[in-house]
Amino acid sequence: MSNTERLEHRACFGGWQDVHRHRSEVLGCDMTVGVYLPPQAKAGARLPVLYWLSGLTCTEQNFITKAGAQRYAAEHGVIVVAPDTSPRGEGVADADGYDLGQGAGFYVNATQAPWSAHYRMYDYVVQELPAWVEANFPASGVRAISGHSMGGHGALVVALRNPGRYRSVSAFSPIVAPSQVPWGEKAFSAYLGEDREAWKQYDATELVKQAGEKLPLLVDQGGGDEFLEGQLRPQLLQAACEDAGHPLDLRIHPGYDHSYYFIASFIGRHIAHHAAAMAA
Amino acid sequence: MSNTERLEHRACFGGWQDVHRHRSEVLGCDMTVGVYLPPQAKAGARLPVLYWLSGLTCTEQNFITKAGAQRYAAEHGVIVVAPDTSPRGEGVADADGYDLGQGAGFYVNATQAPWSAHYRMYDYVVQELPAWVEANFPASGVRAISGHSMGGHGALVVALRNPGRYRSVSAFSPIVAPSQVPWGEKAFSAYLGEDREAWKQYDATELVKQAGEKLPLLVDQGGGDEFLEGQLRPQLLQAACEDAGHPLDLRIHPGYDHSYYFIASFIGRHIAHHAAAMAA
Repeated sequence: MSNTERLEHRACFGGWQDVHRHRSEVLGCDMTVGVYLPPQAKAGARLPVLYWLSGLTCTEQNFITKAGAQRYAAEHGVIVVAPDTSPRGEGVADADGYDLGQGAGFYVNATQAPWSAHYRMYDYVVQELPAWVEANFPASGVRAISGHSMGGHGALVVALRNPGRYRSVSAFSPIVAPSQVPWGEKAFSAYLGEDREAWKQYDATELVKQAGEKLPLLVDQGGGDEFLEGQLRPQLLQAACEDAGHPLDLRIHPGYDHSYYFIASFIGRHIAHHAAAMAA
Repeated sequence: MSNTERLEHRACFGGWQDVHRHRSEVLGCDMTVGVYLPPQAKAGARLPVLYWLSGLTCTEQNFITKAGAQRYAAEHGVIVVAPDTSPRGEGVADADGYDLGQGAGFYVNATQAPWSAHYRMYDYVVQELPAWVEANFPASGVRAISGHSMGGHGALVVALRNPGRYRSVSAFSPIVAPSQVPWGEKAFSAYLGEDREAWKQYDATELVKQAGEKLPLLVDQGGGDEFLEGQLRPQLLQAACEDAGHPLDLRIHPGYDHSYYFIASFIGRHIAHHAAAMAA
């Protein structure tokens, strides 16, 4: 594994929860990535890969320590890859506040200074990360993608813009219409500039209007989520999907909030969904 | 709930993962406690309770965010109570180092200054905590106890010293013979003084020699645990159990370390064990 260092290696549900650091040429910095190798990886098989994109403030650690996904990944024989959420380091631009800069890459390719120098998370997730995974791990090349909040937005955008690249897509509590909510407006103004036409390529509610592939969207949302009405607004995606005839399985779960307790409660269903799609 | 404040309330696997703060008279400070109420609690039933004691440096948060126990507790209808690991606060004695003072109560009643003023975790766990739980939650009064590392030590000691009080006991990576290893020698010297006779009442390997009840001990231990030979030494408990005819189910799992990835991998088996014992 050239340019790769294994930082953690921990037995978990019969497989290994590892953390690697690798050099990203796209981002111009080192990136840390959680990689869960299920027990089936020991047999020499090539396995399907689920990519997980985390939300604001997260690193690769949040998902791998809190979601409890390894149990289900081990059951289904799926590799789970969870990268950090932005470029990092001393030379990388940052901002005050948790919702812009490091920890808040929003899975876009920034076009505006100072962000454009490093913030190219879209290209990293779509191109460089899977290339690195498929060169260094027993990955079959069959992919699925999911994520939470900002990462749910990222998963939906990446899948909708890349027909055929992912067998399935899902999201927890996604920012479905970043162009219409404060988190997205702040980030897109900084990363992409004030021309809102340029925002549409990173807005799932816009992208479903013209998706080249009707990949069904699986979305779980907590009904007690503190960001539901202000930042997430799943009904905007629902209306756009209805207009476009795009299949959406949106489930609102009363009482559940925005935390990993919600993700942990339903991640098993998502991994089963992705495993079935990737086995088909 | 007098003297009790609910700090967190999060839907999880159909139940609620809560965190409460309550006043402990035994410890002379406020204590935070994680309480998982499974979905069965909504029906008005009185449910059995599993007490979980965490290890060095932990608060109530480590177990509730990382172990993935809620899934199994929901499946079996068990309340899970996870207290902080020591008294806390500005008036509470502390020490440099992670293995003495706050976060390192070792589940003993300290007899030595300055520790004796607050460090009475043994009485807190055995008496005050279950009394508070049984007064404030739908608890049936049927109890089991488990824990990790320092908390595995605590669980074994508490169960062995209180025949009839717990239906079952288990431990992950416990400090089985604190009197014979550096962590225990440091803590017991400080909390209990230099008379090693006084240490025996808090040493599972000593207690099995004269246990009033042959409660089977379930112990899981990672074979790749970085503390295995220096601090944990399960073979000392194994030898003592063989000598005393005390039933012990000790399982060494090759490759697993001391982390919550190990606990998460096997907590399901422990909760099933406790649920069966508490239903009997």
